[in-house]
Amino acid sequence: MKRIYNSLEQFSITVNLLKWTLYVIPVSLTVGSLVALFLWLLEAATRLRWQYEWLLLLLPLAGVVIYLLYTYLGKNSDAGNNLVMEEIHQPGAGVPARMAPLVLISTVITHLFGGSAGREGTAVQMGGSVANLFAKWFKLNEQDLRIMLMTGVAAGFGAVFGTPLTGAVFALEVLAIGIIRYEALIPCLMAALFADITTSAWGIHHTHYHIGFIGSNKPDLRFINVDLLLLVKVIATGVAFGLASYLFAESMHTIKNYANRFIRIKWLIPVLGGLLIIALCYILGTTDYIGLGVTGKEPDSVSILSAFHAGGATNWSWLWKLLFTTITLAMGFKGGEVTPLFFIGATLGNALAIWLGAPVDLFAALGFIAVFAGATNTPLACTLMGIELFGSGNALYFAVACFTAYYFSGHSGIYSAQRLMVSKV
Amino acid sequence: MKRIYNSLEQFSITVNLLKWTLYVIPVSLTVGSLVALFLWLLEAATRLRWQYEWLLLLLPLAGVVIYLLYTYLGKNSDAGNNLVMEEIHQPGAGVPARMAPLVLISTVITHLFGGSAGREGTAVQMGGSVANLFAKWFKLNEQDLRIMLMTGVAAGFGAVFGTPLTGAVFALEVLAIGIIRYEALIPCLMAALFADITTSAWGIHHTHYHIGFIGSNKPDLRFINVDLLLLVKVIATGVAFGLASYLFAESMHTIKNYANRFIRIKWLIPVLGGLLIIALCYILGTTDYIGLGVTGKEPDSVSILSAFHAGGATNWSWLWKLLFTTITLAMGFKGGEVTPLFFIGATLGNALAIWLGAPVDLFAALGFIAVFAGATNTPLACTLMGIELFGSGNALYFAVACFTAYYFSGHSGIYSAQRLMVSKV
Repeated sequence: MKRIYNSLEQFSITVNLLKWTLYVIPVSLTVGSLVALFLWLLEAATRLRWQYEWLLLLLPLAGVVIYLLYTYLGKNSDAGNNLVMEEIHQPGAGVPARMAPLVLISTVITHLFGGSAGREGTAVQMGGSVANLFAKWFKLNEQDLRIMLMTGVAAGFGAVFGTPLTGAVFALEVLAIGIIRYEALIPCLMAALFADITTSAWGIHHTHYHIGFIGSNKPDLRFINVDLLLLVKVIATGVAFGLASYLFAESMHTIKNYANRFIRIKWLIPVLGGLLIIALCYILGTTDYIGLGVTGKEPDSVSILSAFHAGGATNWSWLWKLLFTTITLAMGFKGGEVTPLFFIGATLGNALAIWLGAPVDLFAALGFIAVFAGATNTPLACTLMGIELFGSGNALYFAVACFTAYYFSGHSGIYSAQRLMVSKV
Repeated sequence: MKRIYNSLEQFSITVNLLKWTLYVIPVSLTVGSLVALFLWLLEAATRLRWQYEWLLLLLPLAGVVIYLLYTYLGKNSDAGNNLVMEEIHQPGAGVPARMAPLVLISTVITHLFGGSAGREGTAVQMGGSVANLFAKWFKLNEQDLRIMLMTGVAAGFGAVFGTPLTGAVFALEVLAIGIIRYEALIPCLMAALFADITTSAWGIHHTHYHIGFIGSNKPDLRFINVDLLLLVKVIATGVAFGLASYLFAESMHTIKNYANRFIRIKWLIPVLGGLLIIALCYILGTTDYIGLGVTGKEPDSVSILSAFHAGGATNWSWLWKLLFTTITLAMGFKGGEVTPLFFIGATLGNALAIWLGAPVDLFAALGFIAVFAGATNTPLACTLMGIELFGSGNALYFAVACFTAYYFSGHSGIYSAQRLMVSKV
């Protein structure tokens, strides 16, 4: 290592970190507060939809409203997460300030009328938009603007799921496949942490998950005397989780491409999407697969929480959620992909655990993080998310499942702005 | 992301992973077994030294023996960890097979006669040496040889500390400052896991640490309602840990440079080193700072374990251990740096916790991982090590301490072969 730095480098590091502390605080407070508002509205929208079931019938109309919002007010906001990532790779026209309110309103509309969508996309876009605004006010140079946008992503992600460490690593890991650069390690951690504290200070609580399985956590055995049969099962399901990620990403791209190619009148795309969702609900006779899906309306509904218990999901719950979500998001509605990916993974894990004779709660947790790891190509962030949400007792299985899913999702992924740096082959 | 891969990529990924499974198994079994032998010998050497205190007086002579071993049998083995890292960066003459037995024997000699050293260097060098040997037998090309060497490092590190996940991430993270490349993610995880299983199958057990502090782990509070005062203390100690890492690395380089400049007869360097260690023991009236230091000889000895309790270390234990270790390792004795770094960090954390009115066990754990993170520039691996060794309840504090120490150790570090990729300023 070249000794190109003098003995004062600790001084300049201190100055640099203090500078970033000052930059990050307003971003975190704003993003954390917006996320709190967002989660509160989402909760209210979900309750309203449960109360007034006819709201679902207005989904096609809601799609048109979102289309009009983005067409007449959106500028380039429609590019969403990819725009934020492109601006981090190469700052250009900037992330527009209007992206934050637009994505907030349209995501809540999507959820109110029964689209199947998530939250992280919304939080990340609000984060990027707010960070860009402060960067403009602070007159930051290009390099600092890039880091500022990363802190916005970290703040949004960390606050929306209540997992600050994951948020920080996600912001660094998501930009490219196969590489992490540490240029914003501490600013991202501070941003995610402060934003998470802000969201919680507004009284927002996150869902708690619990894994009863502690087979690998006996203090006198530790991880090392691994149950080898269980390990083989974890690897096998990891492959399945990776293929599910692949199927999700490919379905998104395919549906989007076909819709745009064959439907000339663009506002008809969300109308058709909405009608498809309604039709699927009637065909399946359930509304379990619309909305966020963290908890269910009825005690016997299929949801992320129910997937942690045997009988809490059917064999094909994961495929239905995949279909509902890709139709919703590829045909013009707004929201994130991550919570539906949790749903798909947890229900797939549930089905595979029963089939393989493995602990249902552990495998639901593995699917929860691993399908997400495969679809976003962020295996380290997802391993950390498993640890932040479910504890460290099964950390090794978390890593094995996430790393395996990462490989088997191929070089596809839900973010087209993600750059391929290190091939998986 | 460019779609340059066809739909058969999952097939080639499978083939690639199966290939690496076959490559990694013999490396892991061999490295895991060598590590088991090494840990068993280390335990025996420590007991013998405790039993026969006069062994310490032979330390200068032991230094000459090690010098002669490396001079007449060593080829380029003396470059140690740095040689393994250089070969991963740019394969050259290879890591010699003789490095494994040489470093094993000379580390055990160092410990038997009371040098202050660790284990990870030995394990990593055995791993690199064994991996290089198998790569030669398998006639691997240059790219595969690089990955093979990384799996050797992961296997050695994962097995010697019983932390496979940390071992895998360490092998990827240690090569360069500020960047992780995923080219060997699964092979490294497999290698570390299989090697750890092998070591444990030989009946080797690792020391268990326990943190009673669970203030941040209340299920209804989670990490988010962080104790802000405690967070400030964690950041402040993180800075101190980083500066301790810096002091350690600089002392190593300085002592090595001066010894080589002023002592013409090279075998006199370890003789002088040994005499200095003996003198320091008599001046301080204790042998607590020689050897591995995980546990102490007497119930009131200062050790890594004792540092987890109030009164288990003095205000300056960390500085003494730093001095003993840098003299030992910079003046010709063999072994790793990491366990002494654990000792320095845990005792510094102990002293700072009492001074700041913070939980002693938590801050000992923070120092344990953070001084190591700063000295080796591996903040993510060390955060994971904290989680693997101490559980996830304080994961956020682990990350804050490791990331802070990483920044404040500057661009120095104990591995001169580490490349600077992303500046910390």
